[in-house]
Formats: sequence, C-alpha cells, structure tokens
Amino acid sequence: MNKTILSLSGGVGGAKLAHGLSRTVSPDYLVIVGNTGDDFQHLGLHISPDLDTIMYTLAGVADPERGWGMAAETWNFMEAISRFEGPAWFKLGDKDLATHVYRTQALKQGLGLAEVTRMLSRSFGIEHRVIPMSDDPLQTIIATDQGQLPFQDYFVRLGCRPRINTVEFRGSDRAHPHPDFVALLNSRELGAIILCPSNPFLSIDPILSLKKVRAGLQSAAAPVVAVSPIVGGKALKGPAAKIMEELKIPANNLSVAQHYRDFLDGLIIDSGDEHEAQVIEELGIKVKVTDTVMLSMQDRIDLAETCLEFALNVNPGVSPRPPGCGGHPG
Amino acid sequence: MNKTILSLSGGVGGAKLAHGLSRTVSPDYLVIVGNTGDDFQHLGLHISPDLDTIMYTLAGVADPERGWGMAAETWNFMEAISRFEGPAWFKLGDKDLATHVYRTQALKQGLGLAEVTRMLSRSFGIEHRVIPMSDDPLQTIIATDQGQLPFQDYFVRLGCRPRINTVEFRGSDRAHPHPDFVALLNSRELGAIILCPSNPFLSIDPILSLKKVRAGLQSAAAPVVAVSPIVGGKALKGPAAKIMEELKIPANNLSVAQHYRDFLDGLIIDSGDEHEAQVIEELGIKVKVTDTVMLSMQDRIDLAETCLEFALNVNPGVSPRPPGCGGHPG
Repeated sequence: MNKTILSLSGGVGGAKLAHGLSRTVSPDYLVIVGNTGDDFQHLGLHISPDLDTIMYTLAGVADPERGWGMAAETWNFMEAISRFEGPAWFKLGDKDLATHVYRTQALKQGLGLAEVTRMLSRSFGIEHRVIPMSDDPLQTIIATDQGQLPFQDYFVRLGCRPRINTVEFRGSDRAHPHPDFVALLNSRELGAIILCPSNPFLSIDPILSLKKVRAGLQSAAAPVVAVSPIVGGKALKGPAAKIMEELKIPANNLSVAQHYRDFLDGLIIDSGDEHEAQVIEELGIKVKVTDTVMLSMQDRIDLAETCLEFALNVNPGVSPRPPGCGGHPG
Repeated sequence: MNKTILSLSGGVGGAKLAHGLSRTVSPDYLVIVGNTGDDFQHLGLHISPDLDTIMYTLAGVADPERGWGMAAETWNFMEAISRFEGPAWFKLGDKDLATHVYRTQALKQGLGLAEVTRMLSRSFGIEHRVIPMSDDPLQTIIATDQGQLPFQDYFVRLGCRPRINTVEFRGSDRAHPHPDFVALLNSRELGAIILCPSNPFLSIDPILSLKKVRAGLQSAAAPVVAVSPIVGGKALKGPAAKIMEELKIPANNLSVAQHYRDFLDGLIIDSGDEHEAQVIEELGIKVKVTDTVMLSMQDRIDLAETCLEFALNVNPGVSPRPPGCGGHPG
C-alpha cells in the first residue's frame, strides 16, 4: 500500500494498535494522531498522557505491566515531592519526568505541541509520525455526581469512581486540528483511517470534537475502520463500559458502531462477540470478527494487519450514511 | 545569649558554619540569609543553589562528598533528559529535582522566594529561619576573557576556567533586601552578624550589593565578624584564590579583611595563618586564630561557638571605620 494510513489513538489500548501499525507500515505512510483532551498542568509541568503513552509504546520503553509510564522506572522524585506535601496522586517517575520538564520548557519557549512531540519522538528513535490532534488547548471536562472534573482528576485522582452525567470538550469551539491532520483527512493520498481501540467517549470523541474532523471523516475518500474497545460487554482496560452504563448506553459493540455510524465503514469486534455482527451490519457498517485482545507484540502486529486488510475490503461508497447523524456529540 | 544572630552565607563552606550555628543557637535566635545571586532558570526551573545547599545541610540530607545536592541521590532524570539533548552540565538529581519543581510552581503561583523557602525549610524539618537575601531578582554576572557569563555558566559549565575581569550584580539597583533582613540589621535585638566562610566576591558581595545592606552593616549596633575562606593562601573549596589573583588581589586573609574593612569588627583566620594576625589588626580589625577547616560535625559546632564567643569580645565602638570605604564595590 503506498497511500498513507491515518490512525486516531488515545492511551494504552490505542497505543498498542498504533505500535502494531508502526511494525506493519513504513514511517512514510503512517500518521498517528493522539488525543490531547487529557493534557493538564501538574506541578507546573505540561503533561500529555496519551502522547507519552503512544511515544513510549512505539519506542519500546513503556512499562508493560502498568500500561503507563516508562519501564524500569524509579520514584525518587515522587518520594521527595511528597515531603513537600505536593500532590502525589499523579505518579511521575524520574525518567518520565524528563519528558514533562523538556516539553514544558520547549512550550514556554514558544514551540507548538506538535513540534515538541516531533523532537521528543526523534529523541526516542521513533521514525513514524506522532502528532497531537491539535496545538491548541482542549480540555476534557467530565460532569459527574461529584461536580465538574478535569479528566485526570476523574480518571486518576478519583479512579473513575464518580458517576458521569455528560462529557464536555472545553475549547473545541476554538481549537483547530493540526494542519497536517486536516490535510491528510482531505487528501487523495489517504489509504485508510483507523480508529484504535480507545475509549470512544473520553479518548476518541475529543479528537472528533475538533472543527472539521468529523466532517472530514464523513467525506474522506478513504475507508474508516475502528477496532471496538468493548470485549464481551466490558472494556479491556479503563472505564469505557462503566461510562456507557452511566450514559444509559448498552456496553456492547453495537453502541460503538452507532456512536461512529455517521462516518464508519467497518468495525472490528472480538471473536467472542460474533453474535453482534449481524445487527451492526444492518446499520450499513461492515464487521470483521477477530481476536482483538493484544497480549503479545505479535498480537499487535496481527491486529494491525487485519485492520489494513479489512480497510481494503470495505467500500466507503457502499456504506449508507444516515442523514443528520454528524455534528458535534458534546 | 538572648539576642538574635544574623549569618550571611553562600553555598558549601558557608552552609557548614550555618549548620554549626544551628546546633549552637536556638531557632528563635538565628536567621541565616542566603545568597541568591547564583539563582538561575534551568530547564524552565527556578534553581537557588545556595539556598538549597543551606537547607540540605541544615536538614542533614546534603551529600557529604560532593558538597552539593542530596545524599543517596539517583540520576535517572538526568540520564533521560540527556536523551533529548537537554543541557547536561548542571546535574539535577531525582530527589533534588523535587525542590526545583516545587519552588518553580509556587513562584509561578505568585508566592515570593522567601515564602517558598520557608515552606521548603519546614518540609525538611528545619526549625531555624533561612531567608533569601531578597525576593527580587539579582543576577551575578561575571565579565571574563570569554565574555560576560551568568554565574552558573562560569562556575559549573566552564568550571571557573575563564579569567575574571569584573563581577557585576545585575539588578542590585532595583532589588530590595528581604524586609526581615533589613529589620534585623537595624534592630537593637541583634546580637551579632556572622559572615560565613563563603567566597567574598561571588557569594557575600551579592548580598552586600543590595541597597541598605552595607550601610546597615556599618551602622549595626552588633559586632560583625567574618570567618575567612582563605587558608594558607588558598580557598578550601571553590575559586576564591584564583579569582583574587585575577582581580590582582593577594590571596590572603589581609585581602579579605580589607574587602570587609568598612564594617568588619573581627576576622577569624586559620591557625596556619597566624602570621597575618598583626597586619590585619593594624587595620583596626580584631583577629581570632583557630582551626577553621570543618571536616566533622563537631568542627562545625566548635567554629560556630568560637564565632559567637569572638563576637562577644570584639567591641564595635572601638573599631575605627575609615571614611570613604563604604558604598557599592561592584
């Protein structure tokens, strides 16, 4: 394939597929767009959790157990800052900290987040392009039974325990998607768009909330396929299923398909969920059933190859897009 | 003694005596004023090397071998940031980093340096007061044969190798000494002023360059004594002797006495330098000869006690202060 693959990714699960894609597609033909709705200021540092997870995963330096941060990490900074009664709920490893300090300084010097991400990626030896969805601030704010919470407060500090009412992407009316992202969406050189198995509501929706992105996905000449993060009615990792219940949405693949139906051509679901295939295809969305749980590096590569093959076989021209389903979901 | 002792200190050598004083004088009666002319921004962090050395030393967490930074330090942040080709010449340990990150954030939130130093000191369990000479920026700039250099560039990055022409304290025309420092200088409750054995030109002069400080020392009701950092024509640590040669000043205790003569009542010199006592006393400055090299904790305490006793025995009223020797040395 000599057209470019565009993948949209959040953190852990998404990063695994992005990793598989990076082993399957050469650097010139893959662009990974990372969610930055979770970005936040902590201890005066600019932290981009999803971009970091994607970079660490692609570089092979991610911690394989925790799913975030770096392997063989040490925690002497955390121990020292807790002496000052600094906030200890967001764990910053000594090695990980270098990323945040470097990024914060570079942003302060006037560089954009994409440029900083490019410099960091290069330092990690990553040949593929990782770009933030936007250089502009966009903040995922979660309205819960405990009030409005910035993403990391909900996700890390409170361990996803509050019940979600609504999700807001603050700044999406002003934030512009990265120009290369927009250009690629509208390009004839685009071969496929792959939505990684990230949380649709918290990791992919921030990207979709940016101006022109949803419309770009709808009008893209290339097929759009997604890997569902729901397996057997649960999220493999993270709060997707819990959130869907709280939002009164059944925690199944059909809901994921419906959530993306205004632009989705194909959905990959796990082998155990084959019984959902028919009802999803009735929406006009093709379904591929395969093992979506990525335990090994080979699993990541296999799923990436399945995504690429599947994208070649779905025909965007045939997928009926129901009118009135586009627009901002916030 | 129920009057307050005021000590002026730079980094390593000064901090050792300050440590001894803290074991000798109760927290209510000792104020340590630290030089901030070496403060600088590095990797976007506000670093106060002398305040940190004083705090770490008083808290008993300073590295005893290196003379700077914290004991049992780890260097994983440094290793990680060097991957990004970040500047590696100023070593930031993982534990030490917590101090800089915390301070930087607190300053960004609008707190003054003295308030941040108070919070940090308390966190380190330090009961004595450590205050920066000023909350305002003042930058020690060294004019050398390699051009103008901020202090840390000269001191750490270039290892003091450039030849010094002049030393400038940039901002001293606008910087105000900390109000508690000024109040204490003018107080009837002041028992003694002790200049720690720090570099007169690089560590003490920045403090003296602040408005009202030199005049305050001249008019103080309390005796002013200094411990000379020169032992046997050399500086125990640091570039004092080298700098004195470059400034065409003999590297001996007489030069130190002359440098401070407009306010100094007594100078403590090392036992090996006893031959200098007479010529210094001819300036009207009393001399105490003792062992000034502090190798052990007991050495620090012994020298502190000697300072306090000596201060009680010098009579400021008797010391003739030659007219016209005051004013700004910069």
